[in-house]
Amino acid sequence: MIEPRILKGFRDSLPQQEITRQNLISEVQKIFRSFGFVPIDTPAIEYSEVLLGKGGGETDKQMFRFRDNGDRDVSLRFDLTVPLARYVAANKDKLTFPFKRYHIGKVWRGEKPQKGRFREFYQCDFDIIGTDSIASDFEILLMIHTCLSEMNIGEFRILVSHRGIINTFLESISLSDKSDEILRIIDKLSKIGRDGVAENLKECGIDEDGIKKILNFLSLTKNGFSETLGILSEQLGKTDDIARLEELFIMLKDCGIESSFLLDTSVTRGLDYYTGIVYETQLVQLPQIGSICSGGRYDNLTGLYTKDRLSGAGSCIGLDRLIAALEETAGSIVNSTGSADILIASGKIDTATAQNIAVKFRKSGIKTDCYAGTKDMGHQFSYAEKNGIRFVICNKTDKDSYSVKEIATRQMYEDISFDEIVKKVK
Amino acid sequence: MIEPRILKGFRDSLPQQEITRQNLISEVQKIFRSFGFVPIDTPAIEYSEVLLGKGGGETDKQMFRFRDNGDRDVSLRFDLTVPLARYVAANKDKLTFPFKRYHIGKVWRGEKPQKGRFREFYQCDFDIIGTDSIASDFEILLMIHTCLSEMNIGEFRILVSHRGIINTFLESISLSDKSDEILRIIDKLSKIGRDGVAENLKECGIDEDGIKKILNFLSLTKNGFSETLGILSEQLGKTDDIARLEELFIMLKDCGIESSFLLDTSVTRGLDYYTGIVYETQLVQLPQIGSICSGGRYDNLTGLYTKDRLSGAGSCIGLDRLIAALEETAGSIVNSTGSADILIASGKIDTATAQNIAVKFRKSGIKTDCYAGTKDMGHQFSYAEKNGIRFVICNKTDKDSYSVKEIATRQMYEDISFDEIVKKVK
Repeated sequence: MIEPRILKGFRDSLPQQEITRQNLISEVQKIFRSFGFVPIDTPAIEYSEVLLGKGGGETDKQMFRFRDNGDRDVSLRFDLTVPLARYVAANKDKLTFPFKRYHIGKVWRGEKPQKGRFREFYQCDFDIIGTDSIASDFEILLMIHTCLSEMNIGEFRILVSHRGIINTFLESISLSDKSDEILRIIDKLSKIGRDGVAENLKECGIDEDGIKKILNFLSLTKNGFSETLGILSEQLGKTDDIARLEELFIMLKDCGIESSFLLDTSVTRGLDYYTGIVYETQLVQLPQIGSICSGGRYDNLTGLYTKDRLSGAGSCIGLDRLIAALEETAGSIVNSTGSADILIASGKIDTATAQNIAVKFRKSGIKTDCYAGTKDMGHQFSYAEKNGIRFVICNKTDKDSYSVKEIATRQMYEDISFDEIVKKVK
Repeated sequence: MIEPRILKGFRDSLPQQEITRQNLISEVQKIFRSFGFVPIDTPAIEYSEVLLGKGGGETDKQMFRFRDNGDRDVSLRFDLTVPLARYVAANKDKLTFPFKRYHIGKVWRGEKPQKGRFREFYQCDFDIIGTDSIASDFEILLMIHTCLSEMNIGEFRILVSHRGIINTFLESISLSDKSDEILRIIDKLSKIGRDGVAENLKECGIDEDGIKKILNFLSLTKNGFSETLGILSEQLGKTDDIARLEELFIMLKDCGIESSFLLDTSVTRGLDYYTGIVYETQLVQLPQIGSICSGGRYDNLTGLYTKDRLSGAGSCIGLDRLIAALEETAGSIVNSTGSADILIASGKIDTATAQNIAVKFRKSGIKTDCYAGTKDMGHQFSYAEKNGIRFVICNKTDKDSYSVKEIATRQMYEDISFDEIVKKVK
């Protein structure tokens, strides 16, 4: 006998979890498709050389890397961004630019398993590649806004900044030589707080005046979007980056969604490859869940694989975090995890009759399960309850007349018609 | 510069291919869910020990097997059946039986790449586990019938047999000691023809009389379902297996779908783990595509991992074959691969206005792309054409009045209203 164990950091997805995930994926896909974005897929396994890229990052050590049966050095993809860059470089003659694509798929990282961290998880990315138009920054933000609004996870804020602005600021206080360390520290603001940031900056050799200026810069977020832009213009002069954010803000206003957006100078996206406008999200009632949707603009996606420079803007949805948020807010996506709407019991109704009735219900858009076992009615009711099925058809008394049990109330309805059942279910 | 190449036997999925696959997956999922089947997922990587099972098969040699960063002997799943057995054994206290599940996911096999054979491909399985009721055999067949009917891939036949009947037959002619070899040969009938089967049987040491009897047995398929059952009863006596097929046939008739079914004694499913009723499908106009949906009953799914015996019945859909069939028959699934229905051109319409119009179309269920680049109208029309977008909104002349170009006809419509555009698109 072999023990049916799974590897640490990996998960079986039980039916209710998987229904939730599938519902969610199908919702975001519907939104992506409604914006004219198209799905793509790439192999789970690629040449290590391709996935490592310039290498040296934390992810390299975490890669599932091995030699295949042909002794090739291969790895499992650890994100969907590197494969995207390779894909665009390899297929650029077959793609139409600006290329709007989404990609939902599994990635693998051999990182230390801990609460909420797994070695296999889904990523869900969407990007517009091949244009640096402000229209594309704006569209990605509108999509984030649409996704979060449709999910009904309560009030949210989209925090926006521009990598160029923090760079200009660091130049203005003569600290751009330490920008990598400073960005890495600022990125931890929400975790370690202002005192933590101050301490880290000190350790990094920044003097008190510098620390004060940086903390002051980070707190500009208290003001409204346009006020903050005004202050930044005064401090740094009206740079192209500030003008771009202004233009963006006008578009947000023209679409009537500006109240969900904040200009937050502390948003830097760490050492990610972003170069322009960057963003992350915050759930007002569930701040502990962190950003569900982050992203920004990058100016050279495919640089490792081709000489063509392709700028783009994109974001990813943290599906696991979004599911956690939906569970807190009990959204309809996590509440509709029943395996079916109706169970047709076996016993009094023979198999073919049951399936004939079921075919009719299915055609009316009602998920209908016919009990496939040989157990008694008590068992069948319990089967319905465990599967989240709300109604059990126990008998067919006449051409169009049924006995139906409602599981939640334990109530029995006699002599009700097909149409009445359809009405009850819907 | 790194060459953006992919591994032999692996594929990038281009947008149109991926839209087709997603459309198809969403169609079959809808059917599975309508029957009360629930989705599950399992890790792509498992302990090799678990996936190898009793081992020794062809698949073992093809497994992507390696040592992970913790020096564990792991492999990528090569099908969804072994993981299902492990999953059911590991989670049986959390599942409700009869357990009706489907699983659509990638699997990996390091087999020699050849036309139509890949090292990474999708499997799509559905099973009812934990009952040996005839109702479950019947339901799987009804689901196959529903899937093939809904796909509009022309006339099809579902060929049914029972492993027990061929076993009884081989006993009746005293050849059951060679049943493994004989089953393997019979399974090749559609590839090598009757002469090929005869030759193979001869090589295997079967005498002329035996060969004649076997060929005669295989040609019983010429007759109708119940006639064939009658002949079999005469030859072999009325066994339980024959009685079960009779019962099945009555159900098929009671549901009015018997004309799609044939009793074909040459269907054995080779050396697969099936033990009861088995089936495969045949497209009447596209026989070269082979079986799109095969399956059957097995009597001990989880035997390797637990002492509990769990019988089940299930089938899988060959998604790649189904796509090939849909491409031949030009079904709607492969014809609706446009990235969007409408493109709102940039230039005369500013970004925010474009997105405001788009929001309205999207709410009416119309996929609407806003051109994100800065190229001229000629480029934008070509972008629409390449992406399969049928209409381009070039200008908004007034509150509810648009200039629209229809790409296929090159016709320009002036002063048409939002509602008229919606009507045109639908």
